[in-house]
Amino acid sequence: MTDTDRLSPDEEAFLRGIVAAPEPVDPAEWVSLIVDAPGAEDVALWTGRAAALRASTDDGLGRGPAPPERLDALREELARRGLDGFVVPLADAHQGEFVAPGARRLAWLTGFTGSAGLAIVLADRAAIFVDGRYTLQVEREVDAERFSPQHLTDRPPDDWIATHFPADAKLGYDPWLHTPDGAARLEAACARAGGRLVAVGDNPVDAVWTDQPAPPISPAVPHPPEYAGLSSSAKRAAVAETLEKRGADAAVLTAPDSIAWLFNMRGADIPNTPVALCFAIVETGGGASLFIDGRKVTGELAAALGDSVSVAEPDALGPALDRLAADGRKVSIDPGSVPAWIAQRLRAARSEPLRRPDPCTRPKACKNEAEIAGARAAHVRDGNALVRFLAWLDAEAPSGRLTELDAVSRLRSIRAEGERFRGLSFDTIAGAGPNGAIVHYRVDENSNRRLEPGSVFLLDSGAQYLDGTTDVTRTVHIRNPDGGPAPAEVRDRFTRVLKGHIALATAIFPRGVTGSQLDMLARKTLWEAGLDYDHGTGHGVGSFLGVHEGPARISKVPSNVALAPGMILSNEPGYYKAGAYGIRIENLVLVVEREAPEGAERALHGFETITLAPIDRNLIEPSLLTAEETGWLDAYHRRVRDTHTGSVDEEVGRWLEAACAPITAR
Amino acid sequence: MTDTDRLSPDEEAFLRGIVAAPEPVDPAEWVSLIVDAPGAEDVALWTGRAAALRASTDDGLGRGPAPPERLDALREELARRGLDGFVVPLADAHQGEFVAPGARRLAWLTGFTGSAGLAIVLADRAAIFVDGRYTLQVEREVDAERFSPQHLTDRPPDDWIATHFPADAKLGYDPWLHTPDGAARLEAACARAGGRLVAVGDNPVDAVWTDQPAPPISPAVPHPPEYAGLSSSAKRAAVAETLEKRGADAAVLTAPDSIAWLFNMRGADIPNTPVALCFAIVETGGGASLFIDGRKVTGELAAALGDSVSVAEPDALGPALDRLAADGRKVSIDPGSVPAWIAQRLRAARSEPLRRPDPCTRPKACKNEAEIAGARAAHVRDGNALVRFLAWLDAEAPSGRLTELDAVSRLRSIRAEGERFRGLSFDTIAGAGPNGAIVHYRVDENSNRRLEPGSVFLLDSGAQYLDGTTDVTRTVHIRNPDGGPAPAEVRDRFTRVLKGHIALATAIFPRGVTGSQLDMLARKTLWEAGLDYDHGTGHGVGSFLGVHEGPARISKVPSNVALAPGMILSNEPGYYKAGAYGIRIENLVLVVEREAPEGAERALHGFETITLAPIDRNLIEPSLLTAEETGWLDAYHRRVRDTHTGSVDEEVGRWLEAACAPITAR
Repeated sequence: MTDTDRLSPDEEAFLRGIVAAPEPVDPAEWVSLIVDAPGAEDVALWTGRAAALRASTDDGLGRGPAPPERLDALREELARRGLDGFVVPLADAHQGEFVAPGARRLAWLTGFTGSAGLAIVLADRAAIFVDGRYTLQVEREVDAERFSPQHLTDRPPDDWIATHFPADAKLGYDPWLHTPDGAARLEAACARAGGRLVAVGDNPVDAVWTDQPAPPISPAVPHPPEYAGLSSSAKRAAVAETLEKRGADAAVLTAPDSIAWLFNMRGADIPNTPVALCFAIVETGGGASLFIDGRKVTGELAAALGDSVSVAEPDALGPALDRLAADGRKVSIDPGSVPAWIAQRLRAARSEPLRRPDPCTRPKACKNEAEIAGARAAHVRDGNALVRFLAWLDAEAPSGRLTELDAVSRLRSIRAEGERFRGLSFDTIAGAGPNGAIVHYRVDENSNRRLEPGSVFLLDSGAQYLDGTTDVTRTVHIRNPDGGPAPAEVRDRFTRVLKGHIALATAIFPRGVTGSQLDMLARKTLWEAGLDYDHGTGHGVGSFLGVHEGPARISKVPSNVALAPGMILSNEPGYYKAGAYGIRIENLVLVVEREAPEGAERALHGFETITLAPIDRNLIEPSLLTAEETGWLDAYHRRVRDTHTGSVDEEVGRWLEAACAPITAR
Repeated sequence: MTDTDRLSPDEEAFLRGIVAAPEPVDPAEWVSLIVDAPGAEDVALWTGRAAALRASTDDGLGRGPAPPERLDALREELARRGLDGFVVPLADAHQGEFVAPGARRLAWLTGFTGSAGLAIVLADRAAIFVDGRYTLQVEREVDAERFSPQHLTDRPPDDWIATHFPADAKLGYDPWLHTPDGAARLEAACARAGGRLVAVGDNPVDAVWTDQPAPPISPAVPHPPEYAGLSSSAKRAAVAETLEKRGADAAVLTAPDSIAWLFNMRGADIPNTPVALCFAIVETGGGASLFIDGRKVTGELAAALGDSVSVAEPDALGPALDRLAADGRKVSIDPGSVPAWIAQRLRAARSEPLRRPDPCTRPKACKNEAEIAGARAAHVRDGNALVRFLAWLDAEAPSGRLTELDAVSRLRSIRAEGERFRGLSFDTIAGAGPNGAIVHYRVDENSNRRLEPGSVFLLDSGAQYLDGTTDVTRTVHIRNPDGGPAPAEVRDRFTRVLKGHIALATAIFPRGVTGSQLDMLARKTLWEAGLDYDHGTGHGVGSFLGVHEGPARISKVPSNVALAPGMILSNEPGYYKAGAYGIRIENLVLVVEREAPEGAERALHGFETITLAPIDRNLIEPSLLTAEETGWLDAYHRRVRDTHTGSVDEEVGRWLEAACAPITAR
C-alpha cells in the first residue's frame, strides 16, 4: 500500500517530519522542499506517500491514561543515569501555546492533554500538577495511582519537591524546556529539600519514547511586504535601537512568532499558529542569524532573507553564543521565555546574560498600517463566512438533527472557501447547552451533543488568513419549531454580557491606561446581579500569527502594559451556568487614537471593533439596554449588513437583513 | 529661665526624649512617666521644663539647603572607617510614613524634607534620588552642587551606583534602615560595579550629627477594649494560627501600627500616628515579647499587658532572636518592612528567616464591630466640626481677608473641642487657588495665600480620635461678594470629579475584587473629557492608627488584595489645573456586605460612606448629573443634615439646611 520502504533514509526522515506537522491547507505545498520544480507526477507521488504514512502513524496521545510501562521505562532510564527524579513540563523549547507531537512528552508519559501542566517523577512516587481548569480532565485522562494529581497553585511543585524529594538526591531537568526563572524556582525547591537540580544533556523521556514523532517539517516562506508593511531590515534596525537603549549588543530570540515577525517569514510547523520552529540572534551592528532546519527553508525565503541574514542549522546556535561571549558582546535574553540552556551556555562562556524582555513583543503587538488594513480585510472575509454559516445554522438547527461536530465542520468548510485562508487559529469551541458552560471545552466524538431546539449554542472560532488572524464568539438561540422565545433568564444574562461588551467597545481612555484598568467595564452589569465570569476579558491577537499574543491583555490580572494604538485585542465577556448553558460575545477590537474634546489635557484612545457578524437579537432583552447601548448595537448591525449584503446570495441576504434589523426598545 | 541644668543626667535625657516627640494634646499627659502620682506642682514644674527645652531646641531641619560642613564631616567619618560611600535613606527602623526628628538623617544631611527619597554619598560625588512629585521641591531645598538630583524611577540608585561606584570599593549602609529586599537591590548594584555593600554597626551620620535629637518619649497607654473590640490575647491567638498555616513558629514585628494593634496599645512618639516606636515578637505557642524603652511604659499599659507579654528594652531584641534560632524556631519576617538587621542577626544564628507578610496587616485592616461603631461615631464628631468650620468659612471668607493658615488653625481648634480628640491624622492640606493644584502642598509662612473671593479652595484634613481616624477633603467656592457663580469650567470639572466619587461610592462588586479593579470607576467621566488625576483614588485608613494603612488600596497600581468587609478606605478622585486650582472630593467608605439579588451566584460587597459633611453645591453643574447621581447626592445631604442639625447652633443650622438642600436638575 505504501512505497516508503523504497525511500532513502533522508527521504524517509523528511517524510516523518512532514507528517509531524499539521495537515497542510494545500496538500502539495511542501513537495518543492524535496523535489526541485515538481511536476504533477512528483506531487502525486509525494502527497500519496505522506498520506499513507500519516494514515499508518498513530502518536497514541489523547486516548486516556498512558500505558504504565512508559513510567516504568523512564524510571529505569533515570536509575541508569544516576538521577533520583525528573521533571516533565508541557512546554517545548519555544514556550508557546501549541507544541509539535514529538514534544508532547507530558501527554505521552501521563495521558494528560490539557494546555498547562507539569509532572515530577521520583523513584517511589510521581505527581502531576494542573490548575483549576483541569482538575476534572486530569481525573479522566491520568491514572491517579501512578501520578498523584496536585493543584498547581494550591500545592505548587516547589512545595511538593521540598516535602518529598530525598536529601542529597539529584533531580534532573531538561534545560531546553524550562526558562531560567522556572529553573531557578526548581533549584530553590531542591535546595530546601537538601538535594540539587541537575541539567540533563539528552532528555531521558526521548530515550524511552521509541516511536517519538520527528520534529515537524513545513515550508518556511516569506511573509510578503504588502501584508507585513515593514521590511525585515527596518524591523531589525528598530529592534537594534531598543537593544542599544537597554545596554545590550545582541538578543537571542526563541519565540517562533517573534522570529516570524522580525524576519517576515511564516511556516506551518505547529497547529493554528503559522510559524516555523527555529531560533535567532539579532545584533546591534546589523547582524542577524537564523537557526533553522535547512530542509524547511524554501528558495523564496532564502531569496527574501538575502545576504544580511546568516542561515544555519539549529545546532550552530551554541557555537554562535560562544562567539558572542568571546567577543565580549552583552547578550539579552527574556528570562520568562528563553530556555535555561541559553543562559547556561552563555555563562559557561563567561558572559552573564542581560535579563530583558523579548525586544520584538511590543513592536509586533502594535500593528502598522498594512497590518491594520490586512486585519480589516481578513475580518470582512471571516465575517462573510460567519454570516453564511449562521444563516445555514438558523435554517437547519431547528430540525434538531445537527451536532456540535456538524457545526464545526460546516464552519471550517465555509471559511476554507475564503481567499487567503490558511487554516484555523485555534480548535473551534462549539458548546451546545451544558457543554457551553465548560470554558475550555473541545468537542470530540464522545462529548458531541445535538443542538437542541430552544437551547443555547456557544461557538468560539477563528481563522488564519495571509493578511490577518481572526477570533470571534457568537452565542445563538437554537430556534424552537414553535418560534417560542429564549427563556427570560437566558435573555437577562445574555443582555448583561452584551452591556459589558458594549461598555468596553465604547470605552475612551487616556494614553497609558492598561487592560487591567478597563477589565471591570465588561463585568459591572453582571456584578450588579451577583454574577461574573472566571476568565480574562481580552487577549492580544497577532497579524497572521498567534491568536493569543502578548504583551497586552484585558484582565483583572495586574498588568503594567499600556494599551497602544495598533494593538488588536479580543473583547469577550461571558457568563456560564454549570450544567445548563454558556454565553460569550467576542469581537476583536483595534486600539485607535480618539479625537480629544475641547479642553482635553491628555491624548485619548479608544477601540474600533473589527469583527463583523450579527449578534443574536433573539437573546437580547431590549428593556435592559439604554438608548446609547441600543444605538451602538443598531449601528454595529447596520455596518455588518452593509459590509456583507452585496457578497452573499439572496437567501443569506434575507437572513442577514433580519438578523441586522434595529432593536426596538419597548 | 530654665532649670534644666539642675536635672540629673537621666532626667535630662528623659526630657530630651519628651521634646523629640510631638507636642502632646494634653501638655501634662507624660508627667506621670517621671513622677509617681504627680501633683499640680509637679505638673507645672515638668511641663514648664519641657516647654523651656522645646523653645530652646531647634532641629534645624526644613530651612533650605543643609550647611555644607555636614557633608564634609560625613565624608571624613567615612574615610576614617575605610568606607568609600554611604547610603542615607529617608526611613527609620520602622519604615513608616512619619519619622522622629533624630531619624531625619536625610533632611539633616541634605535639607530635603519630602516624604520619599534617598541620598548616596561617595568620596568625589553625591546624589539625591526623589520621585516626580519632588523634582521642584528638591531644587528649592537641596544644594545641587553638593547633591546631584536624580529621578528615582528614571535613573534608579542601582544604575547610578553601577555607573559611579569604583571597582573594589565598599559602600556602607545601616542595616536598621533598609529592608532585606532593599539591601539586596543595593548589593546587586554594588556587585555590578565590582564593589561590595557593607553593613555598618553605628550609623556614621549619627557620629557627626552632634546635636541629633534623642529618640522620642511619650506615654505608651492601653487602647481600651470598648474601642479595640478584641482582646490582645484573642488577636495573638489569631495571628498565631496564621503563622502556623504559613509554617512559621514566630514573627518579628517592626511596624509600630501592627504592634499597636496586636497589643491594644497606643502612643504619641511621632506626628499624626498614635503609636509608640518599638519592636515585638509573637510566637505560635502563645508567647509574646515587646521591646520598648521602659521609660515610655505607663503603669496602665503594664497592667493591661499582664504576665502573658514579656516587656524588655529594645536592645534585648538581638539576644531574643538568637534564642529563637537556637531553639530551632522558624521565624517569619516581612521582607518589605523589617530591617535587614533582623534577617542578618537570624542568619548569623544559623536560622534562615521565612519571608512572609506581616501577619497583623490584614486582620488590622478588617475592622471589627467595635472599631466600626467607633469609626462611625468619630465621623459624626469630625463631620460636626467640619460643618461648623464650613459655616464659619462661608461667612468670613467673602471678606477676602482669610488666609490658608487661618483656615488650618481655625479647623484645628474646632476639632480639638470634640470629645476623644487626639490630634490631627496628617498635616492639613489647605490649597487656595493655584496652591490647590499642588497635590502634596503644605502651607507655611512663605507659601501662605489669601482665599480670594471667586476662587476655589481645597481643604484636605483629618483627625485622630480615641475611637477612630478621619480623613476628608472638601473643595469650596469662596463666594464672590456679588454672589456670582463659580466659572463654568470649574463647575464642569468639579461635577466630573463628583460623578467619579459617586460611581465608586455606589459600586457593587463580588467578593475577591481588588481596589485596582474599581479604580477606573472614579476616572471614567474625567477620561471622557481628556482629563485625569495623577494619584491613587483611595488608601486604607486605620482605627485610631495610621491614616494611610495597608494592605488594600484603590489605585491603578496593580494589587492582589481583595476588598473585604470591615476595611475602611478613602474615596478621593480629583482634578488639578496647574497654576489655577485644585479639586478633590474625599469621603471615607467602609466595605460592607450587600444583599445579593435573586439569582445571584456570588457574595456581593459595596461601600458605606461614613464621612458626613456637605459637598459644595455651588460647584455642581446639575445638568451633568444623572437622576441616580442627583438622588445619591440629595440622600447623602439629607443624612448629613439629619446627623448634625440637632448639635449645631442656630446660625450654623441655617447654613447647614441650605448647604444640604436638594439639587434640582434643570
